[in-house]
Amino acid sequence: MKRLLTFSQELLDRAVELGRKYTRYGEVADYIPELKKQNFQNVALAVIQNGEALYAGEVDTPFSIQSIVKVILYALALENYTVDELKRNVGLKPSAKPFNSVIELELSKKNVPVNPFINAGAIVTVALLHEIYQEKTMGVILNYVSKFLGRDVTYSQDIFMSERVSSFANRTLTYLMLTKGILPKDLEVEEVLDVYFKSCSIMVTCKDLAHMSYVLSNKGVNPDGTRVIDEDIARVLRTLMATCGTYDYAGDFAVRVGIPAKSGVGGGIVTASLDGYGLAVYSPGLDSHGNSYSGVRMLEFLSRELGLNIY
Amino acid sequence: MKRLLTFSQELLDRAVELGRKYTRYGEVADYIPELKKQNFQNVALAVIQNGEALYAGEVDTPFSIQSIVKVILYALALENYTVDELKRNVGLKPSAKPFNSVIELELSKKNVPVNPFINAGAIVTVALLHEIYQEKTMGVILNYVSKFLGRDVTYSQDIFMSERVSSFANRTLTYLMLTKGILPKDLEVEEVLDVYFKSCSIMVTCKDLAHMSYVLSNKGVNPDGTRVIDEDIARVLRTLMATCGTYDYAGDFAVRVGIPAKSGVGGGIVTASLDGYGLAVYSPGLDSHGNSYSGVRMLEFLSRELGLNIY
Amino acid sequence: MKRLLTFSQELLDRAVELGRKYTRYGEVADYIPELKKQNFQNVALAVIQNGEALYAGEVDTPFSIQSIVKVILYALALENYTVDELKRNVGLKPSAKPFNSVIELELSKKNVPVNPFINAGAIVTVALLHEIYQEKTMGVILNYVSKFLGRDVTYSQDIFMSERVSSFANRTLTYLMLTKGILPKDLEVEEVLDVYFKSCSIMVTCKDLAHMSYVLSNKGVNPDGTRVIDEDIARVLRTLMATCGTYDYAGDFAVRVGIPAKSGVGGGIVTASLDGYGLAVYSPGLDSHGNSYSGVRMLEFLSRELGLNIY
Amino acid sequence: MKRLLTFSQELLDRAVELGRKYTRYGEVADYIPELKKQNFQNVALAVIQNGEALYAGEVDTPFSIQSIVKVILYALALENYTVDELKRNVGLKPSAKPFNSVIELELSKKNVPVNPFINAGAIVTVALLHEIYQEKTMGVILNYVSKFLGRDVTYSQDIFMSERVSSFANRTLTYLMLTKGILPKDLEVEEVLDVYFKSCSIMVTCKDLAHMSYVLSNKGVNPDGTRVIDEDIARVLRTLMATCGTYDYAGDFAVRVGIPAKSGVGGGIVTASLDGYGLAVYSPGLDSHGNSYSGVRMLEFLSRELGLNIY
Repeated sequence: MKRLLTFSQELLDRAVELGRKYTRYGEVADYIPELKKQNFQNVALAVIQNGEALYAGEVDTPFSIQSIVKVILYALALENYTVDELKRNVGLKPSAKPFNSVIELELSKKNVPVNPFINAGAIVTVALLHEIYQEKTMGVILNYVSKFLGRDVTYSQDIFMSERVSSFANRTLTYLMLTKGILPKDLEVEEVLDVYFKSCSIMVTCKDLAHMSYVLSNKGVNPDGTRVIDEDIARVLRTLMATCGTYDYAGDFAVRVGIPAKSGVGGGIVTASLDGYGLAVYSPGLDSHGNSYSGVRMLEFLSRELGLNIY
Repeated sequence: MKRLLTFSQELLDRAVELGRKYTRYGEVADYIPELKKQNFQNVALAVIQNGEALYAGEVDTPFSIQSIVKVILYALALENYTVDELKRNVGLKPSAKPFNSVIELELSKKNVPVNPFINAGAIVTVALLHEIYQEKTMGVILNYVSKFLGRDVTYSQDIFMSERVSSFANRTLTYLMLTKGILPKDLEVEEVLDVYFKSCSIMVTCKDLAHMSYVLSNKGVNPDGTRVIDEDIARVLRTLMATCGTYDYAGDFAVRVGIPAKSGVGGGIVTASLDGYGLAVYSPGLDSHGNSYSGVRMLEFLSRELGLNIY
Repeated sequence: MKRLLTFSQELLDRAVELGRKYTRYGEVADYIPELKKQNFQNVALAVIQNGEALYAGEVDTPFSIQSIVKVILYALALENYTVDELKRNVGLKPSAKPFNSVIELELSKKNVPVNPFINAGAIVTVALLHEIYQEKTMGVILNYVSKFLGRDVTYSQDIFMSERVSSFANRTLTYLMLTKGILPKDLEVEEVLDVYFKSCSIMVTCKDLAHMSYVLSNKGVNPDGTRVIDEDIARVLRTLMATCGTYDYAGDFAVRVGIPAKSGVGGGIVTASLDGYGLAVYSPGLDSHGNSYSGVRMLEFLSRELGLNIY
Repeated sequence: MKRLLTFSQELLDRAVELGRKYTRYGEVADYIPELKKQNFQNVALAVIQNGEALYAGEVDTPFSIQSIVKVILYALALENYTVDELKRNVGLKPSAKPFNSVIELELSKKNVPVNPFINAGAIVTVALLHEIYQEKTMGVILNYVSKFLGRDVTYSQDIFMSERVSSFANRTLTYLMLTKGILPKDLEVEEVLDVYFKSCSIMVTCKDLAHMSYVLSNKGVNPDGTRVIDEDIARVLRTLMATCGTYDYAGDFAVRVGIPAKSGVGGGIVTASLDGYGLAVYSPGLDSHGNSYSGVRMLEFLSRELGLNIY
């Protein structure tokens, strides 16, 4: 047994207090104009253990899910294909390059995106889903994300429109993959990108992410005992979160925190481990890699205090 | 509790039998002429659990440690510097590129090698050790490696000479780092490279690597209870093995096997986890990434049979 | 005096005869479906010297101007800006990379396209023109191209539509430049790309290109004595044709042929030198660099026979 | 007839006066310690026309030939192989990258150096010469260079030693080419590099370079009428000087000056054209590309005044 203690309200409060001290160091994402509107002083922490929820900070504040949705998109792809089948389109390799690296894609073996948690990989994943679900894709995704989060969610039209007009990098990656034949020539580019941008614009709270964390950490099963995803899919997702979940900071994150986790530029971080608890944090100020600055510090604190490190 | 069963002699025998079936798919490393001499049919598996050792296959066959020594070299660096200090010279980032990639180094942030387990990172590590220990460096390393392996080891003069004359790639990386100022201008290039090549040429057996695995997995303590390394150093090493231990296959390895591990082109793979057992495999035929082909299959088999996956 | 002889009908006929022998080695461009329809056996050669025109082969066959228009687009930019002003947006550097290289752009200094004759450079040029001429840009270009070619030209709607749907590489470059801030954030992407694709789809004949060659080679003056472009602009264009006119084959072309020239994937090659003659060739089969295979051989033959090499 | 005027002493004096004004903008090469010792205020200009020599400034000051020797090394290779044979080892492509670019080499087609005037290409050339001449290589080169310069030359031991200890970049390129199989596995690395460094350390004056310029510009023939090199070799060299002679500034140089030329970080620039005059300049302060700052300005001035531009 690795965990030394269980989460307590007092510990969560201390963690959030610590997180608030660091909010000034982060920078709210500004490449998507709508994201700049977030209050950088928001800090939240949510835990589910033994069927009980513990909260601290602004756990009900809505923010966009952003890259965290990549975990769920890949899960949905895994409902339709095996990992080995998907590897023909997107790898499982962690990367030392930023999430929107063109060089990484250009130099990768056969030009396949190195993993599904970088932008190119997530776009390929959406393209595969669009091939299956066609014009129903966004509906299917919203429904599937709702199962992970434990309540019906929807996307923000404002953030979607903001993503759409400012996402030159994602269009670069998409057209590069079309050039290289990674994406099919007859791809409906605008439809696929719209689904991707809408997926990133789904509004969540820290509470929702703790629910998602619980599902991933309990081998795919909800707090109420219903199964959301297959046990094996949950394992693959936890593994990818461990190696690729925090962009090119994943290696440092493993050393400092040691809990598989996926972050989004909206400020959320969702964790996943075999230890069975649900744990998520939120604070919109980001570090230079695109991870929540205060969020990483809070997770580091909790990992050390409770012995959550899996390594 | 994740592990479902304990290792048994019967299971090890089945694993080795399986490993033997795969020997024909691997290719013995040929870029170092001396390595080609190994018998590709060798397969071995060694376990230490609850103070007891279990063996199957050619566990006493000597082979060169190769990249597995990078774990120990970085450990020795951590005896002298903190992780954060070392990050100025070598990162903690896993990589999607092969272990001798020049492009990766050329494009990496500030040209610092992305992690200590790629060649450039290990050479930087040796350079740091050489700065401290000067002409005694190789002696200090041999002594330190011996502590990890549980017996006095030495390097093979033949393999060392073979590495030395054929290692154009390592010289490329070294001079590139000198050009970029990552290595100091007055570096004694030949001395440092000799130490690196000699370290890679240290002769070990599968038994030795199981001992090393036990030390790493028992938070730095020997089977006889003596401490080899600090608990925190052991944790950092396990973490790096998880994210960077099997070259650009690390992400796939995590999904398929899920045990932190470090491989070497000599054919050995050493594992490390918090679950307390020592486990190492050996078979000299390599896959395209440079990992033991049969070794990976045996570990995959054992991980599935015993639930060793940490994710 | 470098030129040994003047062009004769007999020499042109021999050149075309030679060109026909090589048509089987070239490959008609297939990445733009409409281009595949060209007859690969077409070979043409047109010369204007001392006010007299000499023709051989299919000199009246229409084909699309393609990259040759980049010379005229840059000329139009030079009507509005100095070379030094334009260098802030597009360089003057020849390149060892293919015309649609993403890596070249990604790694170029400040991400500015290395020269106006690679696709990224031509797109930047069109964007600059669009800033000035807005919705009139295509009309201005058609008018300006007509002056160079000596008759009113228009573009092929079929080739334009074909370019538009198949030009993933050009969209990759455009969005990469938007990402890097080389192109302004509020760029009307579709309008600019349409102007670029339409410009490439302008239909010309070998006769037209000989006229263009004459203008460039006579310091900007038409056969009838009227000035088309400033003497200094003509010089800059000839220079860029010498160093960058035949893509990454420019260095080899200079050694083998030694006449400044610009090629297009439509199969045309237009030359320019201080020696005062107009000279153009056409044959749609291309070499691996995108230059007319037979065209290069005919120019090599004429250069040797007449001593046209400027070096 | 392109040239408007002939060189006069008065014009040379004005050019040198202009050159002196620019000396403060250049920076003397400092990556080779010995080069720093040069007086940055030195400016020289030497011309040979119609059998007569004209001089201005410090035309007798010795400096190291540096990259200008690459022209002569490639000439010597052309005495033994055809251009097409040499293309298997070194290309003819101009480059948008600096002379010591590792990326350029790593990404070049088949990893062959793009041209003989970048460092990698010159090292390959020396390796080819060493294969032929073995331990006599340096003697053969000194003899051959002497023929080009019109007097017996030798290299500076001090500069040679200085090059040798500071040339990490050249060793990087050499070992990368060994890794990639561009250079043969049994290459005598130190011997070859020594020949290369010694060649770069040959001491010349501006007068000597004017002699070399005259030979190149007179189709390989000395002022005294004796032939130094074949006419065809002289043409290839002039062409390469036009497209690759001033590193990644070659495209800009062609537009601003328009005379084929080769520069060296010692501060010399030698020109070559079909117009028959010999012309060289010298001033040790360099621009950011590695070309003599004042030298380029003087050539630009003379080109404009006398209409020397070949384009």
